[in-house]
Amino acid sequence: MAIKTRDECLERLKEAKPNVFMLGKKVDRVWDDPLFRSTLNLLGATRDFAFDSEYKHLSAVHSPLVDEPVRRLNLHLQTSKEDAIIKAKLTREVTSRRICAWCGSNVMSVLWAATYDTDQKYKTSYHERFAEYVKYIQKNDVDCCWGMMDPKGDRSLKSHQQKPLTDLRIVDRNKGGIVVKGAKVHTSFGPATQEILVVPCRSMTEEGRDFAVSFVVPIDTKGITFIARPAPAPKQPMDMEGAIGSAIGGVEAMTVFDDVFVPWERVFLCGEWDMCDRVPSYFASIHRQSKCACLAGHTDMLIGIIALTAQVNGLDMTVAHIRDKLTEMMMQAEVAYGCALGAAEAGYQHPSGVWVPDALIANSGLNYIRSQAGHHLAALHDIAGGIIVTMPTELDYKNPATKEYMDTYLHGSNDFTTEERLRVLSLAQEVGASRFTGYLLGWAVNAAGSPQTNEILVRAAYDLDKRIEIAKDWARITK
Amino acid sequence: MAIKTRDECLERLKEAKPNVFMLGKKVDRVWDDPLFRSTLNLLGATRDFAFDSEYKHLSAVHSPLVDEPVRRLNLHLQTSKEDAIIKAKLTREVTSRRICAWCGSNVMSVLWAATYDTDQKYKTSYHERFAEYVKYIQKNDVDCCWGMMDPKGDRSLKSHQQKPLTDLRIVDRNKGGIVVKGAKVHTSFGPATQEILVVPCRSMTEEGRDFAVSFVVPIDTKGITFIARPAPAPKQPMDMEGAIGSAIGGVEAMTVFDDVFVPWERVFLCGEWDMCDRVPSYFASIHRQSKCACLAGHTDMLIGIIALTAQVNGLDMTVAHIRDKLTEMMMQAEVAYGCALGAAEAGYQHPSGVWVPDALIANSGLNYIRSQAGHHLAALHDIAGGIIVTMPTELDYKNPATKEYMDTYLHGSNDFTTEERLRVLSLAQEVGASRFTGYLLGWAVNAAGSPQTNEILVRAAYDLDKRIEIAKDWARITK
Amino acid sequence: MAIKTRDECLERLKEAKPNVFMLGKKVDRVWDDPLFRSTLNLLGATRDFAFDSEYKHLSAVHSPLVDEPVRRLNLHLQTSKEDAIIKAKLTREVTSRRICAWCGSNVMSVLWAATYDTDQKYKTSYHERFAEYVKYIQKNDVDCCWGMMDPKGDRSLKSHQQKPLTDLRIVDRNKGGIVVKGAKVHTSFGPATQEILVVPCRSMTEEGRDFAVSFVVPIDTKGITFIARPAPAPKQPMDMEGAIGSAIGGVEAMTVFDDVFVPWERVFLCGEWDMCDRVPSYFASIHRQSKCACLAGHTDMLIGIIALTAQVNGLDMTVAHIRDKLTEMMMQAEVAYGCALGAAEAGYQHPSGVWVPDALIANSGLNYIRSQAGHHLAALHDIAGGIIVTMPTELDYKNPATKEYMDTYLHGSNDFTTEERLRVLSLAQEVGASRFTGYLLGWAVNAAGSPQTNEILVRAAYDLDKRIEIAKDWARITK
Amino acid sequence: MAIKTRDECLERLKEAKPNVFMLGKKVDRVWDDPLFRSTLNLLGATRDFAFDSEYKHLSAVHSPLVDEPVRRLNLHLQTSKEDAIIKAKLTREVTSRRICAWCGSNVMSVLWAATYDTDQKYKTSYHERFAEYVKYIQKNDVDCCWGMMDPKGDRSLKSHQQKPLTDLRIVDRNKGGIVVKGAKVHTSFGPATQEILVVPCRSMTEEGRDFAVSFVVPIDTKGITFIARPAPAPKQPMDMEGAIGSAIGGVEAMTVFDDVFVPWERVFLCGEWDMCDRVPSYFASIHRQSKCACLAGHTDMLIGIIALTAQVNGLDMTVAHIRDKLTEMMMQAEVAYGCALGAAEAGYQHPSGVWVPDALIANSGLNYIRSQAGHHLAALHDIAGGIIVTMPTELDYKNPATKEYMDTYLHGSNDFTTEERLRVLSLAQEVGASRFTGYLLGWAVNAAGSPQTNEILVRAAYDLDKRIEIAKDWARITK
Repeated sequence: MAIKTRDECLERLKEAKPNVFMLGKKVDRVWDDPLFRSTLNLLGATRDFAFDSEYKHLSAVHSPLVDEPVRRLNLHLQTSKEDAIIKAKLTREVTSRRICAWCGSNVMSVLWAATYDTDQKYKTSYHERFAEYVKYIQKNDVDCCWGMMDPKGDRSLKSHQQKPLTDLRIVDRNKGGIVVKGAKVHTSFGPATQEILVVPCRSMTEEGRDFAVSFVVPIDTKGITFIARPAPAPKQPMDMEGAIGSAIGGVEAMTVFDDVFVPWERVFLCGEWDMCDRVPSYFASIHRQSKCACLAGHTDMLIGIIALTAQVNGLDMTVAHIRDKLTEMMMQAEVAYGCALGAAEAGYQHPSGVWVPDALIANSGLNYIRSQAGHHLAALHDIAGGIIVTMPTELDYKNPATKEYMDTYLHGSNDFTTEERLRVLSLAQEVGASRFTGYLLGWAVNAAGSPQTNEILVRAAYDLDKRIEIAKDWARITK
Repeated sequence: MAIKTRDECLERLKEAKPNVFMLGKKVDRVWDDPLFRSTLNLLGATRDFAFDSEYKHLSAVHSPLVDEPVRRLNLHLQTSKEDAIIKAKLTREVTSRRICAWCGSNVMSVLWAATYDTDQKYKTSYHERFAEYVKYIQKNDVDCCWGMMDPKGDRSLKSHQQKPLTDLRIVDRNKGGIVVKGAKVHTSFGPATQEILVVPCRSMTEEGRDFAVSFVVPIDTKGITFIARPAPAPKQPMDMEGAIGSAIGGVEAMTVFDDVFVPWERVFLCGEWDMCDRVPSYFASIHRQSKCACLAGHTDMLIGIIALTAQVNGLDMTVAHIRDKLTEMMMQAEVAYGCALGAAEAGYQHPSGVWVPDALIANSGLNYIRSQAGHHLAALHDIAGGIIVTMPTELDYKNPATKEYMDTYLHGSNDFTTEERLRVLSLAQEVGASRFTGYLLGWAVNAAGSPQTNEILVRAAYDLDKRIEIAKDWARITK
Repeated sequence: MAIKTRDECLERLKEAKPNVFMLGKKVDRVWDDPLFRSTLNLLGATRDFAFDSEYKHLSAVHSPLVDEPVRRLNLHLQTSKEDAIIKAKLTREVTSRRICAWCGSNVMSVLWAATYDTDQKYKTSYHERFAEYVKYIQKNDVDCCWGMMDPKGDRSLKSHQQKPLTDLRIVDRNKGGIVVKGAKVHTSFGPATQEILVVPCRSMTEEGRDFAVSFVVPIDTKGITFIARPAPAPKQPMDMEGAIGSAIGGVEAMTVFDDVFVPWERVFLCGEWDMCDRVPSYFASIHRQSKCACLAGHTDMLIGIIALTAQVNGLDMTVAHIRDKLTEMMMQAEVAYGCALGAAEAGYQHPSGVWVPDALIANSGLNYIRSQAGHHLAALHDIAGGIIVTMPTELDYKNPATKEYMDTYLHGSNDFTTEERLRVLSLAQEVGASRFTGYLLGWAVNAAGSPQTNEILVRAAYDLDKRIEIAKDWARITK
Repeated sequence: MAIKTRDECLERLKEAKPNVFMLGKKVDRVWDDPLFRSTLNLLGATRDFAFDSEYKHLSAVHSPLVDEPVRRLNLHLQTSKEDAIIKAKLTREVTSRRICAWCGSNVMSVLWAATYDTDQKYKTSYHERFAEYVKYIQKNDVDCCWGMMDPKGDRSLKSHQQKPLTDLRIVDRNKGGIVVKGAKVHTSFGPATQEILVVPCRSMTEEGRDFAVSFVVPIDTKGITFIARPAPAPKQPMDMEGAIGSAIGGVEAMTVFDDVFVPWERVFLCGEWDMCDRVPSYFASIHRQSKCACLAGHTDMLIGIIALTAQVNGLDMTVAHIRDKLTEMMMQAEVAYGCALGAAEAGYQHPSGVWVPDALIANSGLNYIRSQAGHHLAALHDIAGGIIVTMPTELDYKNPATKEYMDTYLHGSNDFTTEERLRVLSLAQEVGASRFTGYLLGWAVNAAGSPQTNEILVRAAYDLDKRIEIAKDWARITK
């Protein structure tokens, strides 16, 4: 079986020498840096999932490309409606527990279709190259990070208009390959993976042809520097506080490419500027369908935390306003999940074999659920009470001089010990009143493209003319 | 082919002699009463649809029960995921054009499953009887109305507690059949159909056993009286005003059963009080899935009308606030439709063969889209302007003394004549500022059960304990 | 005392001979046309209010201009903060009962300030003329309608760009006065008043100088034609249905000026195009402050109707969802009213003496409450139930053949007779599912300017730069 | 002049020896503990404000009680409508800049009225005592913290039902005074003040008579322990990150009273259980009126930060979705502020002299603006982009090995240097994606009582019967 275990993956990390900076220092040993622990744990969990007795029939899937099992959410091409539906189901299962399912397979499917289109138009052989690469990472169970988003500098300007140039572009083409320069931002997990897969993030005009570039390279390729930001977690490991962030998280990074050489066999787009829009276009369907399920899961997780917080405070679903706020969140989670399934259902098969979910439904569902993220956090505060902002800290609970006072005066429902209540309030605090809170908001609002991108796409895809014609029929206007 | 044409259906109406009252008078000739025209036209349209070249491959479907084609939305049992998906697709197509697809097949599917359950528990033979009945109406292409909602009198009391008794119940059981008394409300289309299919609308306790009754009888059965309300439409046919309501609509009725005899072969539930909840339960999945698609279609129709109204005023999607309001509505329509498809996808096959969509998704999606209905009407007013409330009437436009003034001073965009603009504004007025407006609101807010019924169901079906367990895991609480 | 009674006012109507058309016919006897009854009743009520023992200390006010009492909401200049506050209080009192307080005094105050400004800049004497006119209407207790909104034709074009010209403009100036041509729309109550006061509705450029015109003339001045639309009400007087609309309402009209001569002493603006913006600008403060209170009152009225509807159905504020929906509406009414008072409080005294409420607060409050109007109607449907759309009509209740059935089967709470319940459901139906519904929506969404006008004004008035400076301070950016 | 400067205040802190714990350690030198710096700075700012040339005519006010100037927001009794209006104005000014105006005077006004009521009923002399105390703190410019909120333990139980007892209560009464035991939570700023003023937080039944207690004592009174939580700020002072939290903040604390003796002259309620509701009741009017203005100010501050963030990204108010989101926030700020003024306007004078704002408006306005807090943060993420979650840290920008890359690739609009952009993005990050974020949410959602408390109060104060009567009038129901 090709799927590597968590430990095998960790060992492999020691072999690479990426150039990584974080908090002003160089990070030489990613594999045992405390600030990377939660990231490695999350990546490890994606592997555990493939061995989980309850889920492995879904989370590990046979890949016809290599005739071996692969991790579905990370490495499987989405080639059927069923794939898209199982993906949504698994994604919600994971994100209702541990925040991120790391659905790296989406960008694989996106590029599978995009390279196919380019080859059709330009008689190039990007698709074949990329297929070879997919086989390689499936066989070797490689962890790739995505380098998709350009920094974009001044958002009112195009890539070639920036001063200085910020976005990743080709600066040289030679016999062996190309040389690229620029940066990608939001490289989630980057320094803890093996390879970085670069794709364009927006459409280009002809002047932008050098920005039309897609490729993959190992993360320790000469010229690559990651400037990373730690995942949200307590500075030191704690027993009660920061439970989620201590366990799992995702280092984020800006990835700088300073004259990085890429051999031709790893180049998947090179100058065909009019094909750049394919990536964001397929991404808008394939990844946002996942994101609907992902945010349904986050909502589930919040519902559980809020309900448990109410319980430790002595309250439950018989209190009308708690019941109603949680019911509203349940309905929102189900609407988002319903759209994930509905988009899968209404999708189509791309000639390359990829199943492309319906963009209208996926983008509409995502726009809706993400618009509720702020409200969900407010609901947590509402039901948990001000105590999550003002409560004494774990260190005081561990201090004998104050522990007894806290045991007495922070006691809540008699169904729980004070320590249990404090654990739950600490969890609510992490989610609603810590750096983790901003992380959750960011993942809801901007991950997989901003709310505006949903609206633009819906506007473009919705058949408004058809509906205007119906109105004209009723008004008996014939033109 | 068993499907009857619009005209055949009209002929058949002449054969029945239902006892119908409307606006204080007895209606003897439903088939040519002007107040029934729009209803008959809508029912006729459900037949035309089965012959429509573009849709007949979907709207007419082979029924294995009778080995003949039947009208899918009206008479086909939903026995597969595909059925549920095609139903949603067709429903949206219809309701974006002519308000109501008359999805009578849903109650058939509901009762198909419910009678099966009753037989399983009580070794009765209701299911077989009902199957015979379904074959009969499929073969003869019969139009049934639904008698589902009881009047419920004082809403804080159960059926058997009402004083006087209002809800339909069994008052006698004899060798040949049963005798029923009471009323059903919201009998849409009732007097214009052939038979009335009665089902319970809520769960019962043992004291309510006489209210546990389901049956079907011809509408002109002795003892039945319809007290009907006209569909919203202009009093006289107009050329410009009331275009939709003049063409199509639905007479509503309260149906009184005054000691009506029902032979046993048409009785599908009789006293098994603990099975009453099956009907609203399956209904909550099967019919509300339709309703998600239905309201997506209504939203589409409104989008078209609003966009056209903007055009006749000289405005379009380049005006930011118009673009944004319409985009929001597009996204809402797609979310509702996504939930219709997603609920179908996440459904399950009932042992009776019926495909039951997922209740969580269907109810959540419906609750969402119906909550926007008021906003959609406000958006229409916003974009159309105050003129739809204050404009002179069609009769003034037809009056030579005022026509010229109206032609000059109510001229809008030069892309349209004044008459065209007035037709469009009249359409906007009908939808947003006429009796039709309330009809639309009613269909959105209360049809297929009220918003509360969605919330109750979601709360019951959502696995809250599972999410609380996840929260406990994070808080390391082990109990 | 100068305030005329309802009957005196009616007598006076007989003296004028306005040219009025409605529903395709000429209306010669406004004072006893059944379609005008509700309008006359509403205007009459503004007079009764000045004699009402509970309110007359507020509703009748001493006018220093004429040293006599005048009707506050109709004829009093707003010259102090207290005036603005009492106006808001009275407005809410009235609109929570009978829909419209007819706050005609607002446009008087607006023009009082605007003419002052024009005179200051142009050394004209419009203000003095207008002051004379105000004294005249105060002394004689004259009813004026407003002719403010131009038809605007193609909304993307300015007045002078329309083809054909639609907006009211000066076509001749001579020794005795001016001649005007064009139309005004939304002339509420027009044919039932004595005089029409015309003001500009938007800012003009120099090409629009002929559209810069303000004046007043009697409504039966040669060349004026009203093309009117009936207020929403049952066609025939009913006992139970259409209670509000039968009692009170407002005829709307398009008013055509076909070469109408206006003597100089009644002209208040004539070509000073750069002063046109004064009217909409003061209007945005003075009238929208009223409108906040007005919609608070409408919300109050709906709250009462919804609560009563719940009662006749056997439900009340102990039902959580009813309690919560009504509480939300209460809070919205109070927010709107709070903004009416807050805007008065934060206002300023114009050099002409007029008290101008704060535009930011008035427009923000109005934008909020009007955005909820659709939801309020949906809440009514939600709580009343589908019955308000499907119930039998009053004529059936009056028909002995069906009355008993209705008495039995539409009985609700035992605290009410069936007839009482039907009266309440009919009231709910009128408000939520009749032509009146659209009227309410129109009054909420578009009366006193559209939602966009609020946003434009807030954007213009809010000191964004100040807040950006604070942000720069925190970011330590010094430029 | 009695108002002490920031430095005088700091000196005074050295004289007290409160028992303070934070992060597991005892804090002996509050006045120079780095974790208290931001708190002291905020308290100092309330003093600077009284000397600020622009505001001192408002922020310092003559107190007739002591015939000296006092800090208005901290120590002035609110005895007129004008007081309440100036308070709102000043509060918004401050909170749009530095988060908290520390409106300690509100609880003074609340207790002023409450003690008056108690004396009226019980012929006690609490009011006189309290008046003496107010004179003392005004003369000496004393900083008091509020001890209002009890821990409440199991929220479904009353104070006397808790096991263990958590809420503050009288455990002994003797000749010299009383002895109290229990805790108060949410003691904002507590350890950095001089005295703690304790009041009840909810109504009591007779069994709760020992919990009916109000008093004031110095914070270093024997038996008092503060278990404090640091204000949100970077661990170490940074140059770019955490700008607001580094400058100002508020230490929060749980305050334990372990058999604390209070002399009679400092006791303001002692066992009169039926008077407990007076404090939350007056608080609901007086403090929530402030809170409306406070959250208007926070919204202003966010608007400025969002607009500036857009600018450094090269965008501005010409981008439709940015313009619309900011306009919506402007309107929300103005609505909240309008309600602060409107509540002042509609208030009444309590017999004790205190001006009590209208509870309906204050609670409705607060409920509205706080319900938007989550959306405001989401809007910040939306417009700032994902970069605020993923960007490299300040330490990397200070590291020469990475600074140049960041300068190049994180450059935005050419109107700003990269450093300036990073400062602004860091500010956006602090507000939207740091521990500060939760603090903001907490202040919006729960400070001054939860959303539910608003709803309960509005429901109680709104005259629903009056509106039902109006509905009955229309329905012609006479009972």
